[in-house]
Amino acid sequence: MTDFSATKSLFHIPKGLVYLNGNSLGMLPKSAASRARAVIEHEWGEMLGRSWNDAQWMQLPERLGNLIAPLIGAPEASVVVGDTLSIKLYQALASALALNPNRRVILSDNGNFPTDLYIAEGLMKTLDRGYVLKTPAPQEVESLLDERVAVLMLTQVDYRTGRMHDMRRITELAHKAGALVIWDLAHSAGAVPVDLAACNADFAVGCSYKYLNGGPGAPAFIYVRPDRVNSARPALPGWLGHATPFAFARHYTPAADISRMRVGSPAVIQMAVLEEAMKVWEGVDMAAVRRRSIALCEQFIAAVEARCPLLELASPRNSAERGSQVSFKFAGGYAVIQALSARGVIADFRAPDILRFGFTPLYIGRDEVDIAAAALAEVMATKAWDQPQFHSRKPVT
Amino acid sequence: MTDFSATKSLFHIPKGLVYLNGNSLGMLPKSAASRARAVIEHEWGEMLGRSWNDAQWMQLPERLGNLIAPLIGAPEASVVVGDTLSIKLYQALASALALNPNRRVILSDNGNFPTDLYIAEGLMKTLDRGYVLKTPAPQEVESLLDERVAVLMLTQVDYRTGRMHDMRRITELAHKAGALVIWDLAHSAGAVPVDLAACNADFAVGCSYKYLNGGPGAPAFIYVRPDRVNSARPALPGWLGHATPFAFARHYTPAADISRMRVGSPAVIQMAVLEEAMKVWEGVDMAAVRRRSIALCEQFIAAVEARCPLLELASPRNSAERGSQVSFKFAGGYAVIQALSARGVIADFRAPDILRFGFTPLYIGRDEVDIAAAALAEVMATKAWDQPQFHSRKPVT
Repeated sequence: MTDFSATKSLFHIPKGLVYLNGNSLGMLPKSAASRARAVIEHEWGEMLGRSWNDAQWMQLPERLGNLIAPLIGAPEASVVVGDTLSIKLYQALASALALNPNRRVILSDNGNFPTDLYIAEGLMKTLDRGYVLKTPAPQEVESLLDERVAVLMLTQVDYRTGRMHDMRRITELAHKAGALVIWDLAHSAGAVPVDLAACNADFAVGCSYKYLNGGPGAPAFIYVRPDRVNSARPALPGWLGHATPFAFARHYTPAADISRMRVGSPAVIQMAVLEEAMKVWEGVDMAAVRRRSIALCEQFIAAVEARCPLLELASPRNSAERGSQVSFKFAGGYAVIQALSARGVIADFRAPDILRFGFTPLYIGRDEVDIAAAALAEVMATKAWDQPQFHSRKPVT
Repeated sequence: MTDFSATKSLFHIPKGLVYLNGNSLGMLPKSAASRARAVIEHEWGEMLGRSWNDAQWMQLPERLGNLIAPLIGAPEASVVVGDTLSIKLYQALASALALNPNRRVILSDNGNFPTDLYIAEGLMKTLDRGYVLKTPAPQEVESLLDERVAVLMLTQVDYRTGRMHDMRRITELAHKAGALVIWDLAHSAGAVPVDLAACNADFAVGCSYKYLNGGPGAPAFIYVRPDRVNSARPALPGWLGHATPFAFARHYTPAADISRMRVGSPAVIQMAVLEEAMKVWEGVDMAAVRRRSIALCEQFIAAVEARCPLLELASPRNSAERGSQVSFKFAGGYAVIQALSARGVIADFRAPDILRFGFTPLYIGRDEVDIAAAALAEVMATKAWDQPQFHSRKPVT
């Protein structure tokens, strides 16, 4: 049994705040602050460069990969951490295309996060070999899986609506069509059970600042299916992906394992914070997280639909097709989110009209859902969103 | 007048330590530790996602670029910070090659840091358009500048020997030959005066964990000559280089300025630490830093050559051709560095036989040079390097 009051106690919860934005930036695990202090003041300040060996800074990317692996159904030594999701996606896509050299279609969908599609377009332009990127509606993806598709590249959970692809089914269909599959787990890792090995996915990437609570700017991760790793060409062959980086050899020889997906120097401070943040997962059962996540989402949907007739559910009603977030549509959504914030309930807005509420069972429970739903009902009933102070746009929304 | 006792007082200096390794990892600026604490405990822990706006996390990459710019002779808004040097070099090289599309030679030298050459080879393979990478000896670079060279890509200061290219002269020659020029300033920024604008360099990249004291894993930077920035194609078009990232547009439109070289989410904690570290440069005159750096290097060379006949100077004797480090060759160099470390003098070793000593005037003075030279003389005189405990190799050397 996962004890969610115990996991909640591991986080710093600001007084009076109900935080339904863990799908954007996870809360601060208390011990992360002291770990950062130790890394900066002792390992950097006192030990200095010796910490590359003595504090094992150099191994952080692989060590973190092994901490994330169990949450996404990946075996030991198949995940490595570093860079940003954009960079890791570039590496995955460049490798995948090279592994399927006679096909020219990259298939994604129009619910994918923009950076994934931008990165794909950037790589296509660099390659200049007639690649085509298709971005149909999510429900049309399966019908477009044909013998021209080199790589299927999808984000499992839609960042706006929480709609979730059936990873196992689609991966199997893609493989039958001869395509390789890359999954973006940005809104999946730590949010829903993922079983990359059972799905036989070829590559996966994700970030660690959402449901993994690694903090602002926490690094990304990449998974390569173990039987593919030694044929996956690193398209960004930085020295720390070299088989023997400290030989300073003139030519690049990729490491004979997932370490070949490392690029440059690891972001030691961010990674140490993430390593500490990963400790909250000790003893946590992802199936229990999923059950609680669904219960919280259902509770919120029911309460909001009962009391806020102007809000239209934008997420799938069927919990099996939904990640760990609930979204509603409303034209005045931006101001509603501001008005909620003024009441201590933090959610976020995605243009043009999406209100997003993330449910993170490690630190959110039924009480917070009640408070949030009541605050939202009050904002809607009093038309608080109509007050001018909630309309001034901030640059990042 | 730059007051170096004042700058030294801004750093945490471990008791009894003489640190001649600032060319690898700079020391901890005292205020960086408290800034990290504030970012983690207050901005993340209390303010959470609102800090993207309210603590201006989102603007860190450009703000840091503007703090680094004066140290490298770059105008306001021509530098942006992020990722690692490998990634920034990839962006610079991909952009530069696209700006000189009819040529097929990338010219570098065999003193370049390996990751630069690996990244170039990786990009050439991705492009698959007949590019050739030439890596002559550094002194032969000028003679190879001909009408086939698309891009000249050099590290100004050699990481092993401290040998320094004449940036202005070589850039001018390269431009006369019709090549674009990329400078890697890893061992230059904060170490020697650099004037990118006066040199008319096209691109530059560098890191911030050495002489800029940004801490382990501190981010890299990229400079694009202002008149080229809007024709420089971002080869890694992540969403935060988009003209309007929060419009979540389906297609990529690069920002109309240096921000187009941003890729993914900024490493907020590392960047905040770097921002604090950059404050030690307030009121510091790079010409004064250079004078003192030369004096310290000369003092060290004279003392070592007088007392350690087995050590052969591996750096240029002429200070005008040398960065802010001094290297010696010795077959037992690894053990010498270990024996020095046991005596509280930290330097480092680069295979096969290079002892590197970095001189960072912000926190190193004549006294430390005396202590280091005396310790080195003692190690050599007593053959301390011959003791077995100094021979066991650590993974990172």
